[in-house]
Amino acid sequence: MNWVSELAGFVSVETGEAVRARHGGDVSGHDAVWPDVVAMPESAVQVAAVLAWANERELPVTPWGAGTSVEGNPIPVRGGISLSLERMNRVKEIRLEDRLAVVEAGTKYRELNRQLAGSGWQFAVEIGGDATIGGMIANNAAGPKAVKYGSTKAHVLGLEVALADGRLIRTGGRTWKQSCGYNLTQLFVGSEGTLGVITEAIVKLTPTPAVREVVVARFASVREAVRCVGAMRALDAGAIEFLDRSYMSFLGEEAADTLFCEFHTEGHGRAAEAIFLAGGATEVSRAGETLWAARLRAYTASQEANPGARLLTTDTAVPVGAFAEMVEFLQAELARRELTGYLLGHAGDGNLHVILPWRGEGEWGAVEGFHRAAVRKSLELGGTASGEHGVGMGKREFVATEHGEEAVAVMRGIKAMLDPRGILNPGKVLPERIVTNANEL
Amino acid sequence: MNWVSELAGFVSVETGEAVRARHGGDVSGHDAVWPDVVAMPESAVQVAAVLAWANERELPVTPWGAGTSVEGNPIPVRGGISLSLERMNRVKEIRLEDRLAVVEAGTKYRELNRQLAGSGWQFAVEIGGDATIGGMIANNAAGPKAVKYGSTKAHVLGLEVALADGRLIRTGGRTWKQSCGYNLTQLFVGSEGTLGVITEAIVKLTPTPAVREVVVARFASVREAVRCVGAMRALDAGAIEFLDRSYMSFLGEEAADTLFCEFHTEGHGRAAEAIFLAGGATEVSRAGETLWAARLRAYTASQEANPGARLLTTDTAVPVGAFAEMVEFLQAELARRELTGYLLGHAGDGNLHVILPWRGEGEWGAVEGFHRAAVRKSLELGGTASGEHGVGMGKREFVATEHGEEAVAVMRGIKAMLDPRGILNPGKVLPERIVTNANEL
Repeated sequence: MNWVSELAGFVSVETGEAVRARHGGDVSGHDAVWPDVVAMPESAVQVAAVLAWANERELPVTPWGAGTSVEGNPIPVRGGISLSLERMNRVKEIRLEDRLAVVEAGTKYRELNRQLAGSGWQFAVEIGGDATIGGMIANNAAGPKAVKYGSTKAHVLGLEVALADGRLIRTGGRTWKQSCGYNLTQLFVGSEGTLGVITEAIVKLTPTPAVREVVVARFASVREAVRCVGAMRALDAGAIEFLDRSYMSFLGEEAADTLFCEFHTEGHGRAAEAIFLAGGATEVSRAGETLWAARLRAYTASQEANPGARLLTTDTAVPVGAFAEMVEFLQAELARRELTGYLLGHAGDGNLHVILPWRGEGEWGAVEGFHRAAVRKSLELGGTASGEHGVGMGKREFVATEHGEEAVAVMRGIKAMLDPRGILNPGKVLPERIVTNANEL
Repeated sequence: MNWVSELAGFVSVETGEAVRARHGGDVSGHDAVWPDVVAMPESAVQVAAVLAWANERELPVTPWGAGTSVEGNPIPVRGGISLSLERMNRVKEIRLEDRLAVVEAGTKYRELNRQLAGSGWQFAVEIGGDATIGGMIANNAAGPKAVKYGSTKAHVLGLEVALADGRLIRTGGRTWKQSCGYNLTQLFVGSEGTLGVITEAIVKLTPTPAVREVVVARFASVREAVRCVGAMRALDAGAIEFLDRSYMSFLGEEAADTLFCEFHTEGHGRAAEAIFLAGGATEVSRAGETLWAARLRAYTASQEANPGARLLTTDTAVPVGAFAEMVEFLQAELARRELTGYLLGHAGDGNLHVILPWRGEGEWGAVEGFHRAAVRKSLELGGTASGEHGVGMGKREFVATEHGEEAVAVMRGIKAMLDPRGILNPGKVLPERIVTNANEL
């Protein structure tokens, strides 16, 4: 295409099949769509230049971090340009006294933590994938430690963002407190590249805990396990993970409903053990590291155990008081629909994933039906369709059901104002179909 | 006026002088402007009705909580309707298991905490004024405990908001994790009623600390005091307040640069004492409660000590590493300009207030010149013009200097989309004059 060579005049581009294929999908089960070209900018100014140029030509631009998302978030469904941030991966500043780091958007969070090793400080969001910080911000990723430290949105002080028309703006700043103008930072956090392309972030640093005590407790029922969650939060647990009996047996462990907690204060592990025993645990142990690694690898392991299958992952989160009801509902629905699903989640946040392998159209219908039932139930319990994976392609229609038509109209107004030609990650986040009655999902 | 009787047809209104006077000002030194009428809606639907009606007539509507703001935020500078939320003051739900409460916007935060007393839970933002939760959200208020718990923005899960045209929307939800659509909640937090009127909020509850240890340390210099701040944060202090020697003598205390910390873990007070002594404190004590009360009353006390004077309060926050430099700069500027100013702040956040009494135009110039110098220095150090008081009337032109012209253009775009006729709290937040070079302030 002629426009590709024009683009290549001011930014590195790749058109080879391998590179385009790699930027055509994420780890979800959504159909891959290859971009026409992958642009590899090396600076915010280059990102802005690509956008200004693409905006004039109304060419779709879909930002791409590391492709570890699970909701099709960076798939360029209308082709065009995949804007890869992978060459913008510098940690620009680490300022321990100010408790912040400044990173280019393509910096992997593990790389930032590697550079922080030994300093006593960390970027405190930990997720399964080897994601970029820009991608984590764009999707508002969370993971097991969010129960203590909050989702990614709680760790962003400021951003540099390239807008659709090529303007570069800065939002927020370098202070932990700021009450000066509208909060544009949080408008871009979680917007999945549909409102602008994050090029740089100022992120908070958090003290690394000096102590790490991991306790695993197995229970005969979900209710008993969940009844202990409040006490674990009272101990300021750094993670409160739930793995249901089916997922435990998938891991080759004893088939018990299991809670899995991490503590950062000396002695809290021992207190947790006593609480678990009082709460009816059948077994309590400290042998948690293997399980911890397995937990972080849940998605990859589910994929490996089901070669050739695609995965659908639910991401509902409910108010914590309704967590046991939600787990039991999902278990019953899996049984009733005769579906295989690995059930695990962040109990302290009420956030639960069911990972469902499926093959072909025939199985898709059943799996999707389960997903809709899960979202319906979550909304009925006061919860959300997406706790931490974002909306991407697979959860778009739930946005209106969850927030209502008027709120979605405001979201559309913001999108239209910032991206009037609709070039930024088209086909994501905002719903095509407005379903405000959950029963019609 | 004829329109007032029309308005009175569907919402309670007050037109008496005392009520209009009370809704014409806040505790700042900004000129009071009386509204033509004070509307007292009793439900979100009534708020929405007032807005829809006023929008058709292009009548200004300025939301009013408790008038405790210090930046003129709720002053109806163009007259019209003061929309008082004081009759919408119900705590609708307290859900301890879900760690949340649902309150009408006019609920005082102290009333919510009164209802929570004995439950082991609190709304964890504490400020000097007896403010409404809606007002605290609208201004993104913070206060001494923000160093541990964050500003108000960190405590809001969801909102109900009446838009300028009378639509009612809900944002966010009841879960601590949510990654489903644009974050409209944080768009309204800190927008000071210029984008919509908050009618209801879902706020987080935080465990009440079982322990409270208060330690006061006096130093011979700012540098020595500030050098201890990092260690106090490492002890997870619940507050790290700084009061300079001039403010301490104003309080009738020994004229020493003083740090004032609160801890929620047994023994951390003792550790802090040892650290302070090692850091060169001239005196360390536990007699903090009186000082704590004095600290919270700083604004009122400054007013009482200067009858007839108005107050200007600076609200800069700088990265913590630059806090000592900022304090020393401000002390030198006060001396150089021969101004009286009480200097106190939230050292753990780098947030510093100078309260400056002034009388008449003659003194205003000097006081305003100091304010501009403070903001210039703060921005130069990577800080903000407003850490926690919002923009209101007095800090508008700094918004562009701090965020840049392009970011302000985005803010204006959002304002125009949500309030095309400009009826909502006109004359606040967004600057009239664009000054992007701090030296031109």
